[in-house]
Amino acid sequence: MSSVKSYLPFNLPTTFKSLFKLIDDPPERIQNVRGWVKSFRLLKKVAFIDLQDGTTPHTLKIVVPRDTIDVERRPDSVLRQLRTGQSLLVKDALWKPTPTRLQPFELETSAASFQIMGQVPDSYALQKKFHTLAFLRSNPTLKHRSNYLGALMRFRSHVESSLTQFFDSHDFTKVSPPILTSGDCEGAGELFRVESNSHLANKSSYFGKKTYLTVSTQLHLEVLACALNRCWTLAPCFRAEESDTNRHLSEFWMLEAELCFVENVGELTLIAEAMFKFVVEQCIARQADLLPSIRPEGSAEDAQTVLARWTSLLATAWPRLTYSAAIELLTKRHAEVPFKFTPQWGSDLQSEHEKWLASHFDSPVFITNYPKDCKAFYMKRNLDDTVACFDLIVPQMGEIIGGSIREDNYDALIAEMSRRGMKVEELEWYASLRKNGSVPHGGFGLGMERFVAWLFGAHNIRDAIPFHRSAGGSIDM
Amino acid sequence: MSSVKSYLPFNLPTTFKSLFKLIDDPPERIQNVRGWVKSFRLLKKVAFIDLQDGTTPHTLKIVVPRDTIDVERRPDSVLRQLRTGQSLLVKDALWKPTPTRLQPFELETSAASFQIMGQVPDSYALQKKFHTLAFLRSNPTLKHRSNYLGALMRFRSHVESSLTQFFDSHDFTKVSPPILTSGDCEGAGELFRVESNSHLANKSSYFGKKTYLTVSTQLHLEVLACALNRCWTLAPCFRAEESDTNRHLSEFWMLEAELCFVENVGELTLIAEAMFKFVVEQCIARQADLLPSIRPEGSAEDAQTVLARWTSLLATAWPRLTYSAAIELLTKRHAEVPFKFTPQWGSDLQSEHEKWLASHFDSPVFITNYPKDCKAFYMKRNLDDTVACFDLIVPQMGEIIGGSIREDNYDALIAEMSRRGMKVEELEWYASLRKNGSVPHGGFGLGMERFVAWLFGAHNIRDAIPFHRSAGGSIDM
Repeated sequence: MSSVKSYLPFNLPTTFKSLFKLIDDPPERIQNVRGWVKSFRLLKKVAFIDLQDGTTPHTLKIVVPRDTIDVERRPDSVLRQLRTGQSLLVKDALWKPTPTRLQPFELETSAASFQIMGQVPDSYALQKKFHTLAFLRSNPTLKHRSNYLGALMRFRSHVESSLTQFFDSHDFTKVSPPILTSGDCEGAGELFRVESNSHLANKSSYFGKKTYLTVSTQLHLEVLACALNRCWTLAPCFRAEESDTNRHLSEFWMLEAELCFVENVGELTLIAEAMFKFVVEQCIARQADLLPSIRPEGSAEDAQTVLARWTSLLATAWPRLTYSAAIELLTKRHAEVPFKFTPQWGSDLQSEHEKWLASHFDSPVFITNYPKDCKAFYMKRNLDDTVACFDLIVPQMGEIIGGSIREDNYDALIAEMSRRGMKVEELEWYASLRKNGSVPHGGFGLGMERFVAWLFGAHNIRDAIPFHRSAGGSIDM
Repeated sequence: MSSVKSYLPFNLPTTFKSLFKLIDDPPERIQNVRGWVKSFRLLKKVAFIDLQDGTTPHTLKIVVPRDTIDVERRPDSVLRQLRTGQSLLVKDALWKPTPTRLQPFELETSAASFQIMGQVPDSYALQKKFHTLAFLRSNPTLKHRSNYLGALMRFRSHVESSLTQFFDSHDFTKVSPPILTSGDCEGAGELFRVESNSHLANKSSYFGKKTYLTVSTQLHLEVLACALNRCWTLAPCFRAEESDTNRHLSEFWMLEAELCFVENVGELTLIAEAMFKFVVEQCIARQADLLPSIRPEGSAEDAQTVLARWTSLLATAWPRLTYSAAIELLTKRHAEVPFKFTPQWGSDLQSEHEKWLASHFDSPVFITNYPKDCKAFYMKRNLDDTVACFDLIVPQMGEIIGGSIREDNYDALIAEMSRRGMKVEELEWYASLRKNGSVPHGGFGLGMERFVAWLFGAHNIRDAIPFHRSAGGSIDM
């Protein structure tokens, strides 16, 4: 920490986050505190102002005794000009401990010590403490100032840091595979085409061939893993899905990890579970900084519910069952309470099936060894008609991680690609890894927005990314 | 560290990086070591094998006494089948300290303990210890296995971790602004258009309007900073440049940071310098893990040169001069030794000017306060005809960071946009920040590949990204 600061020869402006850390050894006075007005109350003898600054879910309480400094009785007093949303500078204040209250201190100052830095129009959108999520979403330039969506952004940042720590400590190299690619290698979904503006005009091609936005970095990640042993990435991926649900985004961030020398899918599930639990542990450790004190009306889970989920996630080893066992369970259930889709060996699990399984176990559940025709061409074949893969499904959300051991035998891979009618020559670069010191390897992919939204108790993954992109008019800014 | 491991109920395969950490308290024997054959020598009485595993620049020395275990005299002995590039499993070996040598230990084992996991063809590309960079680049699926380019990937990962640590410790929130945007807000370069494949077919539009890949996330980052106070991102950006130089990529990763309550450009330069120096310090601390022991023939700098640069970067505060002062210096120089382009107040600095300035000071140099017409519309106007901005230029490379204080006054911003003939209504969402609790703020952007390449002593930024994209046939995989 000290080394981090040492190259900065001046103090950055004080953040509220850093202020709250001073509680054990508070200063007498504090200068130049800056933030935005969250709310205020002007009483006869005293004024209370709650400031926020975006670095913590907690507001800073400012107290202004009106009988001490009387300027505020004048009509032009700063206090009378206060509006929610204004940016404010408090030049000088007294630190007053308030150990019996929820917030352990407040700052006492005089109206003369204020300066309004930036005004707001009378129509400023975030007037109330409580807004609905729908209302917040309709104000994309202001919504992150709300307690809830601001907290969600800070939460995502913390999850990213924790993931970095996890992969660092396990000797993974973070890499940046390409976003622009030459094809839909996975057949994972609808593609976005890319062409330079000026080449569009003269009907030529910037890259000399059709170019797409990546749907998954996995194939390139395998190239890197076969050189660096273990690697991971967190990168935007793109799917031009027409389905406009609260579980899908056209632009989303995907964590993908790939490592050599893992031979069975059980090991992979243990690594995914360890990663997941480490992040949860880091969230619990920082809960007071992470969980919002104010939530939108309606749809958002409260802090207790979220915390209870985190705690229960760490309590046990998560169940594992094969796809075949899952189909058996689902078939039994279907006989009692029918699903919309009949569970059937050989068909992919439907969202309703996944959700029922996770709620049945009341836990994240690993489903392993799907039929080969439900999954991608690169997965390692088991001795039967299944592949060495897993999906991690969680209550409410469904699938959140998918992974597999990769086919590391050249002939087997080419045979499977041919069976599927794929153009083998286009992926020869990928297949060739199996001829050049091939090793058993595998990995998994995690949708960041699903992960963040689910952990945080948000029900729409669009809230887990600052500005979401999906079919239709989502791109106005 | 212990908490990181605690959720993993089995040991991941041993990496060489973790093996080298055991030197102070080595085990007697070690099981199941896996890697790729870098080189080998079969002598009469002993065989030496160098293995690499991609987690460190150091190779692991395996010694096989041939008079102890004699199986290798047989024509089918594993030792006789060894080839560079094969993947190998060493099932069991004795740890032998070799304190007098460069590598402080070696593993002694018998041929019976080997297993070749993956073969290589006779044409395996990476036969020699030394290859030219041009040769490596022509083998994109194997090049990261070379000592030099593998080290460059690990170096980049370390730089990213260090940046995460720096921004975490200064209360920045990491965010993910959108990659798909509706326009070229900066006028920063040629754009890439994006459309879904199926909408291209029926000539409709997936998003309902023209959509582009982002050239900079800054405008969205300002929205987030005005809610979260300080934020940063590391995201891919795209410019369809036609110039095909070793300083330009069509797809590159950009670090952008934005923070509220900074009012002058001097403070911004101090933050950029502190960030830069913190990363350098973290590199020095891990030099033995980061610097490659083997370099390609020709163009790559040796470890001593790189380390000397790192050390000198920390030794002093970097010079700062205004654009006007820079023009004066350049004009003087031009009178003695003419540049290709005449330095002239009001024109942007040319690459040759930047490089001369940096070499003149033999240090990174901050150039501040450029004429307003050289820079983007959103920069804060100084009292004269300049804007409160800076470029950081470094020897050899030229510009590596650019930043500014942003115009936080609504009327001034709109006036400047109108003066430039911009469509004000398309950026009203951006301008509106200045009406809703506006605060002084600023930030900067750093091209990751330039940063990584320059620190590492690589002369072509294409080597600093795993698979580069630029005009022409760069997208074959």
